Amino acid sequence: MVGVSDRKQFRDLVDPAVAHDAIDGLDLTPDAETVPLAEARGRVLAERVDAGLDVPGFDRASVDGYAVRGRDTFGADEADPITLDLVGDVHAGVEPEVVVGEGEAAEISTGAVMPDGADAVVMVERTETVGDGGDRPDAVAVRTAVAPGDNVMLAGSDIAAGSRALGPGTRLTARDIGLLSALGRDAVPVRGRPTVAIVSTGDELVRPGGDLESARGQIYDVNSYTIAAGVEEAGGEARLYPHAGDDYDEMERLLLEAADECDLVLSSGSTSASAVDVIYRVVEARGELLLHGVAVKPGKPMLIGELGDSAYVGLPGYPVSALTIFRTFVAPAIREAAGLPEPQTAIATGRMAVRERYSEGRLRLMPAGLVTGADGETLVYPVDKGSGATTSLVEADGVVAVDPDTEYLDAGEDVEVQLFSPDVRAPTLLAAGEDDPALSRLLDRLERPRFLPVGSREGLRRLSNAVPDVAVTAGPIERDVDSVDLGGWEREWGLVVPEGNPAGIDGLADLVDRDLAFVNRGRDAGLRGTLDAALSEVAADRGVERRELVESIRGYEIGTKGFESPARTVARGDADAGVGLRATADGPGLGFVSLGTESMRVLANPERAEKAGVAELREVIAETDVFESLAGYERVE
Amino acid sequence: MVGVSDRKQFRDLVDPAVAHDAIDGLDLTPDAETVPLAEARGRVLAERVDAGLDVPGFDRASVDGYAVRGRDTFGADEADPITLDLVGDVHAGVEPEVVVGEGEAAEISTGAVMPDGADAVVMVERTETVGDGGDRPDAVAVRTAVAPGDNVMLAGSDIAAGSRALGPGTRLTARDIGLLSALGRDAVPVRGRPTVAIVSTGDELVRPGGDLESARGQIYDVNSYTIAAGVEEAGGEARLYPHAGDDYDEMERLLLEAADECDLVLSSGSTSASAVDVIYRVVEARGELLLHGVAVKPGKPMLIGELGDSAYVGLPGYPVSALTIFRTFVAPAIREAAGLPEPQTAIATGRMAVRERYSEGRLRLMPAGLVTGADGETLVYPVDKGSGATTSLVEADGVVAVDPDTEYLDAGEDVEVQLFSPDVRAPTLLAAGEDDPALSRLLDRLERPRFLPVGSREGLRRLSNAVPDVAVTAGPIERDVDSVDLGGWEREWGLVVPEGNPAGIDGLADLVDRDLAFVNRGRDAGLRGTLDAALSEVAADRGVERRELVESIRGYEIGTKGFESPARTVARGDADAGVGLRATADGPGLGFVSLGTESMRVLANPERAEKAGVAELREVIAETDVFESLAGYERVE
Repeated sequence: MVGVSDRKQFRDLVDPAVAHDAIDGLDLTPDAETVPLAEARGRVLAERVDAGLDVPGFDRASVDGYAVRGRDTFGADEADPITLDLVGDVHAGVEPEVVVGEGEAAEISTGAVMPDGADAVVMVERTETVGDGGDRPDAVAVRTAVAPGDNVMLAGSDIAAGSRALGPGTRLTARDIGLLSALGRDAVPVRGRPTVAIVSTGDELVRPGGDLESARGQIYDVNSYTIAAGVEEAGGEARLYPHAGDDYDEMERLLLEAADECDLVLSSGSTSASAVDVIYRVVEARGELLLHGVAVKPGKPMLIGELGDSAYVGLPGYPVSALTIFRTFVAPAIREAAGLPEPQTAIATGRMAVRERYSEGRLRLMPAGLVTGADGETLVYPVDKGSGATTSLVEADGVVAVDPDTEYLDAGEDVEVQLFSPDVRAPTLLAAGEDDPALSRLLDRLERPRFLPVGSREGLRRLSNAVPDVAVTAGPIERDVDSVDLGGWEREWGLVVPEGNPAGIDGLADLVDRDLAFVNRGRDAGLRGTLDAALSEVAADRGVERRELVESIRGYEIGTKGFESPARTVARGDADAGVGLRATADGPGLGFVSLGTESMRVLANPERAEKAGVAELREVIAETDVFESLAGYERVE
Repeated sequence: MVGVSDRKQFRDLVDPAVAHDAIDGLDLTPDAETVPLAEARGRVLAERVDAGLDVPGFDRASVDGYAVRGRDTFGADEADPITLDLVGDVHAGVEPEVVVGEGEAAEISTGAVMPDGADAVVMVERTETVGDGGDRPDAVAVRTAVAPGDNVMLAGSDIAAGSRALGPGTRLTARDIGLLSALGRDAVPVRGRPTVAIVSTGDELVRPGGDLESARGQIYDVNSYTIAAGVEEAGGEARLYPHAGDDYDEMERLLLEAADECDLVLSSGSTSASAVDVIYRVVEARGELLLHGVAVKPGKPMLIGELGDSAYVGLPGYPVSALTIFRTFVAPAIREAAGLPEPQTAIATGRMAVRERYSEGRLRLMPAGLVTGADGETLVYPVDKGSGATTSLVEADGVVAVDPDTEYLDAGEDVEVQLFSPDVRAPTLLAAGEDDPALSRLLDRLERPRFLPVGSREGLRRLSNAVPDVAVTAGPIERDVDSVDLGGWEREWGLVVPEGNPAGIDGLADLVDRDLAFVNRGRDAGLRGTLDAALSEVAADRGVERRELVESIRGYEIGTKGFESPARTVARGDADAGVGLRATADGPGLGFVSLGTESMRVLANPERAEKAGVAELREVIAETDVFESLAGYERVE
């Protein structure tokens, strides 16, 4: 293995425009192909389609009625009908056997061939049959005059043989498929979809569905399926290849196989510089490395090159970086090769909700979320959870490209967001604050809400910055932000212990006085504040500072992230007690020592209290049965 | 067969709102299903997905560098580095074997598990190894201080086990697939796609790809594939059933089979009232007919009912009507059943380009086209080619719903267009006028142009109404519309005759003086004007009126629609001569008698001369090699 200090550090960064040009110079365009009409939707015509026949192919009745010679009806009206002899009938799909002579008419169905002699059709609604009482009428009384050509669609009048029907490059939707059907085409020449190999690398990656060994530092491979979905969205065909480790020979074999089979090879998945180094060496040895290192954040270590007859792009390892770089540099090339235009909905415009500073000397592709403001306008806020966070994928909606020389984006400034997917839309409700199992269920009742589990205090801070619509708050904190209270509930909290409470814990004093392994929540959690308040009471009873007490609690500083985390630690046998909710202690193997209730309140930005998503949340809080179905919960007016 | 006069005439029309309610009351929702992650893109989550594990599952280095105890680095800076002993290394995907003690450091890769004892990572860029010259360095000099937690991503900090990850109803895009990957999910519970049976009826219909007998009045089935594409666009799964004729037993068997296998049965395809009658009777006998006849144009004879456990909707037969009714009434129900929102791009807003009168007493779904005006605004124009025209499908972009009590839509009035497909966009260029083989090739050079082959005179009329961007004109007509000339060309015209000119025709006089079968173009064609001008000269030479001459030409009144139509008629042996272009007479079995050249000019709306599509057309006319490659063509400055 190469020591970290020896690794490539991509010091010669090229301008993003150079990277775009390099990718544009690669040839990803596959051969055209012919597909059955039933599979042609969404595909792009490879060549012009001219009408090979007249549509309709014959003079056609366009209503149900009677085929006549127009001149025979001249003068007919409601008061003074003209009677014509009935000489037969013509049905759709049948060759006419009748000829219509002077003073004659033939019954005709919509779509039927006009019989010889007839040049117009009288609608059935303007006629009346005249009979002698037998099975069939002998004549028809016509109560309107028709001119030659009336209610007849002439051969070729819809589209004439030889006319241009659809141009090359047409993206086939239902209506184009309709026209191709009318022309009798059951197979269509379309642009090929570029095939894109996805090679994910890194010894630590496990495919979703596999078993994870966290002790070994394994994580699930996020990029493979994410980028595959991005490839399909851009009109390419993604092919996943097996994981490659950091071994040179294995990587070489895999990359060459992928290059042989696909138009473009994307490597992706590893955050490990050593895997990137191995790829780098393979591409240099077996292809051509056109550039490495682009002055863009994230995504500096992007590789662009050729491998055999295939194009090659190396994406960064972190998922948000990989999707951003893919979306910015690679997706346009795939769309171009597939003949597809940029989707209309791939860009959203909005105003910055907050001021954001930059001065980084390279293009910054800032992950950004969308939220709808009080007056329906789109607001844009930066999402920065660190490049490694996969949740940024769903907490951001796209990226804002910030020029290298932009020092800051001001609050209120107009920006364009390049959406991660054309289907992305602003959430109907943006909430931030304390995570809670009842809240999860309330959110299920709403359409497309987004919740950022940042903890109570941070939720309030963001609410005061007018980014989220609502803050969800728990425990004994100051809620002195200008806001509208949407309602709230109480949740029972205490100590989660092993089933049967084997250590006989019955309060916080046990944690202080005995040598028990405890597991706490992080400082951002309202529940930690509630615990601290209870510890302060114990301290006051004892006449000491809380600080002294907590030093005696083993594990007090271990701040786990989720409301279930302490319970999970206890269930695993890794702690004697953890702070938690009664609702999280009802799993197998767990017991609960109740210590009280804590209050949760949902507070809304006053300007957005009437926003549909906010109003719905208020209604759901007031009317839901969620609180009855969760242990230790109660709605509070 | 039922006589046309006995058929149902749908006199009790219900309000469209009642039809919407009836369809909303049908149950199309299929069971949820589980799909592999790789196939989950575009699907809709059937239930909430909570995190089943912490991500990451361990404290993780977020940079390449050295794992240390933060407090050991306090005071370190560029000028005054602190040297720590190197005690080992930790790589991504491997369980750490080293423990970091006081004054010690371990080399660590991005993504690796933090070794016991260490609580922070120093980036490799801020360090320097110190060695004794052996293979591996002994120590590392750290040039910056780090606090505990720096460059470490704590277990669960991305997403904690138990947190709500994705809500029910989430439409899965690349980013959601990323989060599901991070959680290790390789299978996803999604809403089922409603299965929709498409039963096309009518004895006259032939599936695309089959052989057509025009003499029997056969036409290709347009609705089956069109509606199937519409079903897929709406998130359903279309299944095409074999054609049903007008036979009751066959129809019954087919409809019941479809109802048994699908969530919704759509019948479609026939314009024939007798087929509709048969369906009507089957649904009444074997299911329940909820309503028939809706006060909407087009689409009056819509049927809504139930068949077995399946919902049933009967669409009108004409393609534009069928797609319009499908789009308006059925697609929303399919989307609802699939859990999909209305696509953002399904509605376009614009201003009426012309005044349009109505007063029909029922809801009118007016087919409408889009064109981009001079200042980039969207203009909307009515498309009315008669319900039977399949080309309306590609000449219209959607429909405008006009209330029963609206008497007219004024030019300039704002309207909403419900697009036929979410991907539909205004053409880059809207041209109208004379069809021409060179023009077809010029249009191929443009992206998304639309050409309406309405003939020269009608093209000019529309240009004067400011609907199209350009008019394409041929022959000796007055071009006195305010316009910008974009360029033009000449095309050689004459008589298309059988190969070798067996009748020895050498000019128009032969048509007048001999008993020859001639085939002409329609009155809308510029070429007919050119022919008439030439005939006028012959008449003048003879001292007679042109009218007298043309009475002697057998077939002069037969106005075929396409520029190739006369040549095709001659090639089939159905005429001795036809008016045509040299370029259309180069097929096998054809000869040509030249009679001169006719001038074509392309004229632009002066306000849109700088519109991108118009400017491109001008450039293409000036620079193309199309005129060199077509017999009898020449560019004219």
